[in-house]
Amino acid sequence: MADFQVLEQSHPRVDAWEKVTGQANYAGDVYLPGMLMCKILASTRSHARIISIDTSKATALPGVRAVITGYDFPQIRFGSGALKDRYIMARDIVYYIGEPVAAVAAEDEITAQEAIGLIEVEYEDLGAVVDPLTALRSGAPSVHPDLESYEGYGFTIEGGNICTLLDADRGDVDQAFMEADHVFEDTFRSQGINQGFLEPMACAANVEANGRLTIWASTQGPYQVRAQLASVLDMPLSNIKIIPMELGGGFGAKLRLAFEAFPALLSMRTGSPVKLINTREEVFTLNGPRHPVTNYIKTGVNNDGTIIAREAYTIFDVGAYLGAGPNSGIGHGLGAYNIPNFRLRSYGAYTNKVYVGSYRASGVADMTFAVESHMDIIAHKLGMDPLDFRLKNTIKEGDIAVNGSRVPGNGLEQTLAAIKERLGLPKELPDGHGVGIALCEWRSGTGPSTASISVNEDGTASLLTGSVDISGSDTSLASIAAEVMGISIGDIIVASRDTDLAPFTGPSGGSRIVYSQGKAVQMAAEDARDKLLALAADRLGVPQEALGCAGGRVYVHDNPPQGLTLGQLASASVNSRTGPIVGNASLSTLPYAPVFSAQAAEVEVDRATGQVKLTRYVQCQDVGVAINPMAVEGQLEGGAVQGIGRALTEDMLFDQETGAVRNPSFASYLMPLALDLPELETLMVRVPSEDGPFGARAVAEPPGFGPPAAIANAIYDAVGVRIRELPLSGERVLAALQGKISEDVAYIGDELDELKRAEGLVA
Amino acid sequence: MADFQVLEQSHPRVDAWEKVTGQANYAGDVYLPGMLMCKILASTRSHARIISIDTSKATALPGVRAVITGYDFPQIRFGSGALKDRYIMARDIVYYIGEPVAAVAAEDEITAQEAIGLIEVEYEDLGAVVDPLTALRSGAPSVHPDLESYEGYGFTIEGGNICTLLDADRGDVDQAFMEADHVFEDTFRSQGINQGFLEPMACAANVEANGRLTIWASTQGPYQVRAQLASVLDMPLSNIKIIPMELGGGFGAKLRLAFEAFPALLSMRTGSPVKLINTREEVFTLNGPRHPVTNYIKTGVNNDGTIIAREAYTIFDVGAYLGAGPNSGIGHGLGAYNIPNFRLRSYGAYTNKVYVGSYRASGVADMTFAVESHMDIIAHKLGMDPLDFRLKNTIKEGDIAVNGSRVPGNGLEQTLAAIKERLGLPKELPDGHGVGIALCEWRSGTGPSTASISVNEDGTASLLTGSVDISGSDTSLASIAAEVMGISIGDIIVASRDTDLAPFTGPSGGSRIVYSQGKAVQMAAEDARDKLLALAADRLGVPQEALGCAGGRVYVHDNPPQGLTLGQLASASVNSRTGPIVGNASLSTLPYAPVFSAQAAEVEVDRATGQVKLTRYVQCQDVGVAINPMAVEGQLEGGAVQGIGRALTEDMLFDQETGAVRNPSFASYLMPLALDLPELETLMVRVPSEDGPFGARAVAEPPGFGPPAAIANAIYDAVGVRIRELPLSGERVLAALQGKISEDVAYIGDELDELKRAEGLVA
Repeated sequence: MADFQVLEQSHPRVDAWEKVTGQANYAGDVYLPGMLMCKILASTRSHARIISIDTSKATALPGVRAVITGYDFPQIRFGSGALKDRYIMARDIVYYIGEPVAAVAAEDEITAQEAIGLIEVEYEDLGAVVDPLTALRSGAPSVHPDLESYEGYGFTIEGGNICTLLDADRGDVDQAFMEADHVFEDTFRSQGINQGFLEPMACAANVEANGRLTIWASTQGPYQVRAQLASVLDMPLSNIKIIPMELGGGFGAKLRLAFEAFPALLSMRTGSPVKLINTREEVFTLNGPRHPVTNYIKTGVNNDGTIIAREAYTIFDVGAYLGAGPNSGIGHGLGAYNIPNFRLRSYGAYTNKVYVGSYRASGVADMTFAVESHMDIIAHKLGMDPLDFRLKNTIKEGDIAVNGSRVPGNGLEQTLAAIKERLGLPKELPDGHGVGIALCEWRSGTGPSTASISVNEDGTASLLTGSVDISGSDTSLASIAAEVMGISIGDIIVASRDTDLAPFTGPSGGSRIVYSQGKAVQMAAEDARDKLLALAADRLGVPQEALGCAGGRVYVHDNPPQGLTLGQLASASVNSRTGPIVGNASLSTLPYAPVFSAQAAEVEVDRATGQVKLTRYVQCQDVGVAINPMAVEGQLEGGAVQGIGRALTEDMLFDQETGAVRNPSFASYLMPLALDLPELETLMVRVPSEDGPFGARAVAEPPGFGPPAAIANAIYDAVGVRIRELPLSGERVLAALQGKISEDVAYIGDELDELKRAEGLVA
Repeated sequence: MADFQVLEQSHPRVDAWEKVTGQANYAGDVYLPGMLMCKILASTRSHARIISIDTSKATALPGVRAVITGYDFPQIRFGSGALKDRYIMARDIVYYIGEPVAAVAAEDEITAQEAIGLIEVEYEDLGAVVDPLTALRSGAPSVHPDLESYEGYGFTIEGGNICTLLDADRGDVDQAFMEADHVFEDTFRSQGINQGFLEPMACAANVEANGRLTIWASTQGPYQVRAQLASVLDMPLSNIKIIPMELGGGFGAKLRLAFEAFPALLSMRTGSPVKLINTREEVFTLNGPRHPVTNYIKTGVNNDGTIIAREAYTIFDVGAYLGAGPNSGIGHGLGAYNIPNFRLRSYGAYTNKVYVGSYRASGVADMTFAVESHMDIIAHKLGMDPLDFRLKNTIKEGDIAVNGSRVPGNGLEQTLAAIKERLGLPKELPDGHGVGIALCEWRSGTGPSTASISVNEDGTASLLTGSVDISGSDTSLASIAAEVMGISIGDIIVASRDTDLAPFTGPSGGSRIVYSQGKAVQMAAEDARDKLLALAADRLGVPQEALGCAGGRVYVHDNPPQGLTLGQLASASVNSRTGPIVGNASLSTLPYAPVFSAQAAEVEVDRATGQVKLTRYVQCQDVGVAINPMAVEGQLEGGAVQGIGRALTEDMLFDQETGAVRNPSFASYLMPLALDLPELETLMVRVPSEDGPFGARAVAEPPGFGPPAAIANAIYDAVGVRIRELPLSGERVLAALQGKISEDVAYIGDELDELKRAEGLVA
């Protein structure tokens, strides 16, 4: 490992003090003189025409300053991508229970809430469809009958509720299945997931005298919010400033426009600042969660355990709108394995439920549950050790990944080896106890990234980026800059930012900050350092190559006492030819850098109740290099805990008739608590990436992928039952123990045939 | 003139709406939860030892949260330059009436003020000196007896109250005086001037949980405040963030640290935010004004009117501390003329009065009054037309300026010609009416400047600079960026800034923004434009040279309909090799670019009362190019009005015994009102500078230099009396008309001899 001065050492977060003392300011903490409070009226119908909205009583209530409905917004549909399928507030039709129908700005929250109760809406019910498999059937009620007329609608396929199709193919998969010694099929279902961020959606808006809007937002993607808000308000993007506040968790849910448009329009109407803070119930019913996903998976294997073919069909529930990009799980239908022939499909189906949102590499955890359970099933059926079976098929340097990229060097096998060594696999455990593994893969996120670093007169440096801090990413970025410039992390000021100040930057999500934004910071810091070296060379009368930069000074390699501090150089720069020293960098896409994580669970299953107790959880990830080991460990632990919640307890329940959310609170939606968890064992291996900053790879997403399959596999190891549906609840395990759940769900049902027929794959 | 799309056209200010609607936020508008108010206890003694300070009663007053004295600050002297002569709050000794001795933070302003009254200070008087000429005499009481021990004290000269000496010499001036056909001597005195900004000094401070200080300041120089504050609080510069708020006038008074340290320390003591807003009286008594200046000037002229020698001695009153850099007037002792032999000296003398501050090219207006009155006197004595006498001696392209720079091409002679034509000079006016002219020179200000411009997805651009807006400078910077990028001024977002965000930038003063900061903006915009062109060349498959940039798009010169909008390019950039498009620039010193202004006044003098009525005022300035003509005209008018106030009415009065300010209010310190002014006639000539943005030159300072001399010369023309002391009040004119003022003040007095003896120039 390189001889680092700052990296690979743990540093407390640069924002630790503000956070622990409560001084950090969140969007809900914005108080402006004369600020109004906004409340939202939500639809009570699943799918209905709005006959009338009577706001007169609400408007007349003392303290109410404005009431808006969908008709007050420009008649412009927007979307999360090319397809524009959604008004920001219902117009003519409501598509789900919870959809915003009106909003009020009043002098206080209680009055606003009272006014909401005074708005009278007359509806005419239209047919609703709640189950995505039903929605796919021909003849099902259409959620968006006019879908084909929407801007950005790109394809026509039988079954009007399909709004997105992703596909990936290689080789001759049907021929390979015919030639394979064994073919295995399984279908897995995962549950609806709420992102579980602690800070509810919140925002404040203020229209300035010049007509510009300032938005204080709880967002991972200020530039995305700016663009979408400009679109729905039909105003120039440059008339909007987004100030991203401290973020109390997002996990994908805060990547895009939420409800910022409501206080924005209300501020424009009233001339006053307006604030909106969701209740927890609204977080569950108005914001886009992840909906249940059905993954059908089929694998052709030869007798020696070599996988030669894979087919995977994903059907994911979009809810009323495609609120987040298409399910990214499909590309992960191969898992971490090299499979020469494959057909991968992902269908998104509209239903009359709250629109789908993003959550931690949306869809990949569902697919990893399917693939890694399926791999375990196959291994057992072939009589192979599950770990050996995986090792036989892992993708290797030089192979071509599903995305078409050559696979660069990586630590996949080391992660499996580390898990094996730590647990002493294979191992026999007493009856009722079991161990299971899962192998997870992801890629280091990339996308537009910029950074600017200016050197202050005292040798410290100010770092400006457009990315929002999540999970201590500011601290990691500061570490990278400090390492390059040979100063301490405390000497880096991480500047607060807004969309006026910092150049366009991709959102904080998808494990992209350290890899891509960090690379931009590295490049900007190198630019600043090179300028410092050039100035020092000039002042010291030596060639630039003769100089080094460490300990806050530039020194002569051959005579280290000779040199100048960065403070001296920065002070000199302001009166030198160069001017103040500023380093800059801008980049877009970095090459593919995969991330692999091997994970293992040990469980104890109570045969009488079906209750699963997680007794041990071990993960090992190839992090490339640990920018800030404490932060990396935190990311790995946090992700695993989210995955454990997904595996065992979290479950968003929807009414099967109306699509309404049935458990919209943390009392009934069960996230794991510290008491539910064993000590988490977190291992890292380090095979530096070729392009990341100092070799770093993405960290955040993979830890959450493994727990469902690892625990399901451990349950099978413990008590011999296979659970193919999440969460792996005591009820399900007990039902399986009692023989009430079939272990051989070979296909989704008629829906799969129907999809294949539409593709012309079957007659 | 170049074919501009944006420049040379008048644009309303980008901040016009906020300003006219009162939405603009000044430092006094900062309200934070739990904010305390700060008041200052001022010294009541001119020069005294502090025997004791009893703060117990003040501390005990309910609502008082903290009381601080000078002993609560680190024992560190600071200064405006190298010489550190001042504690931020009195420690052991007070040096003037008004000096801060203690400060209080209380829950409201009234309580804070009451607490101030409860602080008991016991003093022991030391000898005070108030008059600077007296202070220069050997044997005068010493203001700073330990001056030589202060950090940065750089020279020793007899007379302990001298704290600064500037000198400039060329040729053999004594020989030239001996050879000259005529030698003329005059002494001029100008008055104390308050900068007259409307917004009193104000600031707010808040200590964050991490120990960082945020300061909301009314300042022209946020980076200067940051550095000085770090020094007096003995804390790392990087622990301080200065947020410059809207500036309600500064004119030099807000270039440096004012009272930010008091709320800062009080916030550190209490953990609460603290705000301070000066009263108008405090603005007069606690802030550094300009003190009276005495200029002795001697000129050797040949019979044909050619000036061959110049000697000038300036004695300027520093007050208790050198609160602003040495008087910059000395370099202007030659005026706009080419004089082969010269000796120029400027002495700063400590007195027991409020410390000196900066005001609009400090000292140059005083010196211009002296030089241009003196030129008029000589012309009349030689029987030459004053304008012709000036023209004979003007400095010309290729001459060497007093600063050693070669004089580049400029519009000096055109400005005189324009004035001559506009007024029809020479002209005869009726008795009691007169016309006078003055020729003014300054240089385009320079210094560290940076800019960053990022292009948004809709083709607009965000501009980040570290300079504070004064007089519409943001609008000018936006104009420059828009011109380069071929977009409209409304498409430029001028981002709010703070010292964390923007790289080090020189202060907003000295006519440096458009020339230097504007150049940095031009360079950054060119950088961004070049990146847009490169991307467009790539996408369009044509060489970059074949492309132009105008009307918000990049187009093919030979086929203008072919092209891409900046929005399309910016959107493409985020996913291209380049990454988001950001242009950057950093520069320090630009070459010397002089600015010349010819001015003329017509007056009517009432022989019975001495009252002078200004009936006409014409100025013509070489602006190079008018970035925003409306703003340039505003600068020229505003400067002239300040000069007219200096000429006729403004006069800070100091008690000759105690040094106390005797007229600390706008009721007794008389700034000109609209009713006092004639319509101002403002002409511009345009000789582009070699290095400024699009040829622009500085604008702000010269208009204020001319009025005292032009009006004094007009009074002489009207009634034949010469007033050598400002203001040119009715009392003085009447006294001169009554023969009570000598017209032949040939020397300062013994003081000049003493100074020359110390220099070894006389025996």
